[in-house]
Amino acid sequence: MVAPQEFLKFIDDNATKFISRLGEAVAIPSVSGDGARRPDVFKMSAWLDGQLKQLGVTTKLVDLGKHVMDGQELPLPPAILGRIGEDPAKKTVLIYGHYDVQPAEKSDGWNTEPFTMVFNEKTGEMLGRGSTDDKGPILGWLNVLEAHKTLGLALPVNLRFCFEGMEESGSEGLDDLIKSETAKGNDGFFGGVDCVCISDNYWLNTRTPCITYGLRGLVYFKMTVSGPARDLHSGVFGRMVHEPMTDLVTLLSKLVAPDGTILVPGVEDMVPPADFDEKEIYDKLDYSIQDVEDAVGAPITLSNDKTTVLMGRMRMPSLSLHGIEGAFYSPGAKTVIPACVSGKFSIRIVPPMTPKAVEDCVLPFVKAEFAKLNSKNKLTIENLHDGRPWVADHKHWSYEAARRATEAVYQRSPDLTREGGSIPVTLTFAETLNVNVLLLPMGRGDDGAHSTNEKLDRSNFIEGSKLLGTYLYEVGAATV
Amino acid sequence: MVAPQEFLKFIDDNATKFISRLGEAVAIPSVSGDGARRPDVFKMSAWLDGQLKQLGVTTKLVDLGKHVMDGQELPLPPAILGRIGEDPAKKTVLIYGHYDVQPAEKSDGWNTEPFTMVFNEKTGEMLGRGSTDDKGPILGWLNVLEAHKTLGLALPVNLRFCFEGMEESGSEGLDDLIKSETAKGNDGFFGGVDCVCISDNYWLNTRTPCITYGLRGLVYFKMTVSGPARDLHSGVFGRMVHEPMTDLVTLLSKLVAPDGTILVPGVEDMVPPADFDEKEIYDKLDYSIQDVEDAVGAPITLSNDKTTVLMGRMRMPSLSLHGIEGAFYSPGAKTVIPACVSGKFSIRIVPPMTPKAVEDCVLPFVKAEFAKLNSKNKLTIENLHDGRPWVADHKHWSYEAARRATEAVYQRSPDLTREGGSIPVTLTFAETLNVNVLLLPMGRGDDGAHSTNEKLDRSNFIEGSKLLGTYLYEVGAATV
Repeated sequence: MVAPQEFLKFIDDNATKFISRLGEAVAIPSVSGDGARRPDVFKMSAWLDGQLKQLGVTTKLVDLGKHVMDGQELPLPPAILGRIGEDPAKKTVLIYGHYDVQPAEKSDGWNTEPFTMVFNEKTGEMLGRGSTDDKGPILGWLNVLEAHKTLGLALPVNLRFCFEGMEESGSEGLDDLIKSETAKGNDGFFGGVDCVCISDNYWLNTRTPCITYGLRGLVYFKMTVSGPARDLHSGVFGRMVHEPMTDLVTLLSKLVAPDGTILVPGVEDMVPPADFDEKEIYDKLDYSIQDVEDAVGAPITLSNDKTTVLMGRMRMPSLSLHGIEGAFYSPGAKTVIPACVSGKFSIRIVPPMTPKAVEDCVLPFVKAEFAKLNSKNKLTIENLHDGRPWVADHKHWSYEAARRATEAVYQRSPDLTREGGSIPVTLTFAETLNVNVLLLPMGRGDDGAHSTNEKLDRSNFIEGSKLLGTYLYEVGAATV
Repeated sequence: MVAPQEFLKFIDDNATKFISRLGEAVAIPSVSGDGARRPDVFKMSAWLDGQLKQLGVTTKLVDLGKHVMDGQELPLPPAILGRIGEDPAKKTVLIYGHYDVQPAEKSDGWNTEPFTMVFNEKTGEMLGRGSTDDKGPILGWLNVLEAHKTLGLALPVNLRFCFEGMEESGSEGLDDLIKSETAKGNDGFFGGVDCVCISDNYWLNTRTPCITYGLRGLVYFKMTVSGPARDLHSGVFGRMVHEPMTDLVTLLSKLVAPDGTILVPGVEDMVPPADFDEKEIYDKLDYSIQDVEDAVGAPITLSNDKTTVLMGRMRMPSLSLHGIEGAFYSPGAKTVIPACVSGKFSIRIVPPMTPKAVEDCVLPFVKAEFAKLNSKNKLTIENLHDGRPWVADHKHWSYEAARRATEAVYQRSPDLTREGGSIPVTLTFAETLNVNVLLLPMGRGDDGAHSTNEKLDRSNFIEGSKLLGTYLYEVGAATV
């Protein structure tokens, strides 16, 4: 263990104070996706900026301009850039986090007021919106800073911070900021950064800490079939005209098989099968079919083999049909022939797949299948948005440091995971700064980040704060 | 021509008054589907009852009880039963109509206030909600009564009336009333009825009067696939679990081909092909592919042959996919795996098909196809509602009377049509009273009955009133 004992003790001794500070942060309803809450997002930025300054961090609030949401022009909450430590002999670690949160209303099904943090001493759960996503992890870093400041300890590395307030709403403006700040070289906040650490995802389960080295990318398609000028009555026009829904459903049925196989020719072929070494990573993960069944609430895994199921999430592409826009969707029985219907589907992608390569398979295939239908309706298909997948070198010294830190704090080896979802900023940091990016989660797999009754366990917050600090010491001690 | 000249002249001479009375009726927004408008539906029943009484009709307002709509208990508007004429030497004709209307708001896209009738002298159009559906036709009968009362003419038949105020909202309570009133025999309002005449549908086009002798029936299915206990994130769970949407879309794609052919085995086989005589009926109809294209606003007919397209509507079953409940339906790009999705589809049926026979094909087929998917999700399928098809004997004396009346008033032979949709009360009258039912429309195919800018043409109202009266004379003169 390279982290000083007094640091670890300080974290334990000040747990109550840290929990109380997390309660303060949760109490600010910084919902970026609700225009009416925008002042609260700004309030949260001021609160966080104040905390950082008090702990000795030099900060800069960057105005990211305005944007339009739900037809309303709104100011974007600032990005908070920060720096502490300028020792050229030390490594420089860039920390990313976000201070905005998902929407939450008690009426959604919360057992407690979402913006009043409730600490259940019995279960150890700290309930509240943002507790785990992502205020808890940000405050973990504050705890580390406070320990060092109070104890008069030098930080083992130089730190740089990038905290944003729009992560839950598309990270508007952030990519440009990262690029422009990087372009400034040593005059910018990101000059000299050796690695990036992001604590904004979760353990695979509720038991085993993990380190994450990959994320899937995504291509989201909208496929529209239009026919009549307006919705028709199925009594009057049924079997007189080509019905857009019939065409659309026929096309959607050709994209993916019920066993999850992607039927669009060429897509599956892009991914080489896992070799023995790679399979071993999945075999070793602390995970079971029962874990999936518990998470989804039903025994519906595509396979009964844990490794296959985990590879399905982590290193295989997937195609999901999300729904249809323009068709009848309410309860009841409406006899409509919808005039124009759009099928929404997305393909999660893994290296070496690229959005472009996937699009080049999907678009011609869908158009060719539509031509076969001999329909007089019209088809359009578009890529609504996409993002590349990301995989980091998990043998990098930053990952080794995280592994050793986890073993030191939790007395066990972390799971080495890839996530099925996307955290787009990860890729931006990796490609713009051209350094290793590490995902080092604090919370558990059942925290309910975007759900009702979001929580962070006290032990994950306190041990997690130790983990973040210890990681910095391991980075400081690492041989590059 | 058996109708007296003075009757026809009276209708022409009083056109302005009749149009003004239609304006009064349109001004009462008797929307049965909007709980807040329920008092207006009652107001309309009182207005109509007053008109009938003034014209010498003995009426009875039948309380149909209460019902629940949108969670609110509401009194049902009364059925208005009426009788005039008790001559055993004359035939007795039962007239049906409805005094409620579809919802309408100017903001839906109306060019004028929907409940203020606007008579455009240039085009001859009388614009307003209910003008053609079904206040115009009801007032046509009032015009006939007024002419006879004022002129001191005896009616050529005994008349019975059944006007309801819930047609646009499921005709609640009406079937029971028809049955109980019929059961009373000669003590009831329907005692001794020889035939039924309903004016509540439309010409096939804008040029040629028509008489309608058939309606399709319907079986409406809801097919539900459920999997996880809640919606899942496609990043986290894509390719780990069986997705209900994939299963559902696969099943929906097996029901109907893009060319309209119903793929459920056995369904198409139920309907014998049209013979030469039957085909000739469709060949003779005043209708073109251009008419369909104009009506739907796009060149999307399943065939370029008019007879095939008309038979598709009138004497073939059709299967329409209406939509999916439970999936993502909004604009935008949500990466959800919906937990439980229900596909809604319906099959329009024609004689000799029955809902039971169709259900017996659909349910086992869908279940067998689902079993083939090897999915761990769950399937349920249910018949939400159904109605039998109806075809009348179009060589019956009531139809002959309508044909002769049309020729007398319009100087041309009517189209002999079947409708693709349903008017459930038609079947109830036919089966309960066990007499011939005739559909004798007043309005044109482009009246926009359930749409914005609903209208009735002045000529259809005035000539239509003559037609209804003349029909009664032809019935009176008919040899049974």
